[in-house]
Amino acid sequence: MKIVLLGAGKLAHHLGPAFAKKSIEIVAVYNRSLDRARQLAPRLGKSVPVTDRLDELPRDADFYLLAVADQAIADLAAQLSNRFGPHLPLVHTSGATPSEVLRTASSRYGVFYPFQSFSPGREINFAQIPLCIHSEDEELLALLRAGAEKLSRQVYRLDDEQRAQLHVAGVFANNFVNHLIGQSHDLLAKAKIPKPILFNLIRETMEKLEQQDAASAQTGPAIRGDRETIAKHLALLDTNPAARAVYQLITQQIKSTNSTNQ
Amino acid sequence: MKIVLLGAGKLAHHLGPAFAKKSIEIVAVYNRSLDRARQLAPRLGKSVPVTDRLDELPRDADFYLLAVADQAIADLAAQLSNRFGPHLPLVHTSGATPSEVLRTASSRYGVFYPFQSFSPGREINFAQIPLCIHSEDEELLALLRAGAEKLSRQVYRLDDEQRAQLHVAGVFANNFVNHLIGQSHDLLAKAKIPKPILFNLIRETMEKLEQQDAASAQTGPAIRGDRETIAKHLALLDTNPAARAVYQLITQQIKSTNSTNQ
Repeated sequence: MKIVLLGAGKLAHHLGPAFAKKSIEIVAVYNRSLDRARQLAPRLGKSVPVTDRLDELPRDADFYLLAVADQAIADLAAQLSNRFGPHLPLVHTSGATPSEVLRTASSRYGVFYPFQSFSPGREINFAQIPLCIHSEDEELLALLRAGAEKLSRQVYRLDDEQRAQLHVAGVFANNFVNHLIGQSHDLLAKAKIPKPILFNLIRETMEKLEQQDAASAQTGPAIRGDRETIAKHLALLDTNPAARAVYQLITQQIKSTNSTNQ
Repeated sequence: MKIVLLGAGKLAHHLGPAFAKKSIEIVAVYNRSLDRARQLAPRLGKSVPVTDRLDELPRDADFYLLAVADQAIADLAAQLSNRFGPHLPLVHTSGATPSEVLRTASSRYGVFYPFQSFSPGREINFAQIPLCIHSEDEELLALLRAGAEKLSRQVYRLDDEQRAQLHVAGVFANNFVNHLIGQSHDLLAKAKIPKPILFNLIRETMEKLEQQDAASAQTGPAIRGDRETIAKHLALLDTNPAARAVYQLITQQIKSTNSTNQ
């Protein structure tokens, strides 16, 4: 399998080497800035051509993987279409972008979306990462599946609507959880308590949620309807309006789940 | 070390056997309902007397551990004081309750607070659980420390104010995170996507937060100021007002962190 990789950002830096390790050949890397492409190339197993000129890309790759920012996908696809015609197999990697943005550029298009938050400097084990594939072109879909299955044990075929839902679900489970734990850290810092005191509680919370649903796993003053503790907590958050707003909203939501269940 | 355990609820069911395993003797269990106390007793290593009458409790325990609901602490302490006088070493296990609620009942009082959410049916390894101790009585504090250190590698001396802050921090890191992940699960269910697709993302989120601060770990559309994706997400949440309210509030908070940092 031969892939042209377009983009040399966070995702390309993780995905490119993962393909190379599994003997999926990256035949060229394109990036607007050559510097970033040159940083990435040595991690792709052998001497891979890098370029900032689309004309120089090989025409015979199995697919063209657009690992670029959401806003750049349609424009890059249009440029590829201008140069290589309307049948180049184009695949983007975006959770939030419908595959249709590629439709005007090519008759063969799809999505290869790794469901993970990629941070620079953190090692990623693709075997653990869910890969979400989509194409209405059966041949391209089979290629995406074969590539995905080499990388990961978790391959999901999800259409555009499902992928969009997954993307927003990921915002809750990752970005928003991160924000809440940040607020928790800030409360500890204010009380001069070291944050490792939280680690076990958080791990326990997560492990429990792998085994049971969140409604039955819920504990704490809101689900108990413990008004006295809630009042104490709100008083403690008096000088922290952001944390207080979160506390009020989520407490109210948990309470109303409770009364619905009773 | 000899302890009288008062209460036979969730916490007592976890804490009592943990003490017994470490050769800390539970010399009696008191509970208003004898049934629950009788369920607990066989897990305390040997035949431990259970009673629903305070008069029957031994007078010579090293301390009296009130593992009861927050609202029941002051009243139970007053009853103990009436029967055994004003110097009985009384210790409660509540995060949200100041130690002072025990002051009128005894000259010797303290707190032994395991920082964990206890769920029935889940095994708890106390070695991993932070135990927070407090007393202004040096002798009682030393006893609590000795008991805590037998159970756990993480013993923190925290005063009432710190413990109250820790308790609210725990609500964010556990109860509120649980709620958000529940909302994430609901979004997946609506799209007919199995929830294990989330597990790795959540684990990665947690592990990252053990190594770096939440502000630098933040990713996603809010921190990028990606209005287009945010608008798509809000449209997807149109039929889910609770999730939409959470999305709006937390996105706005993350965005404003971002603009503060720039």
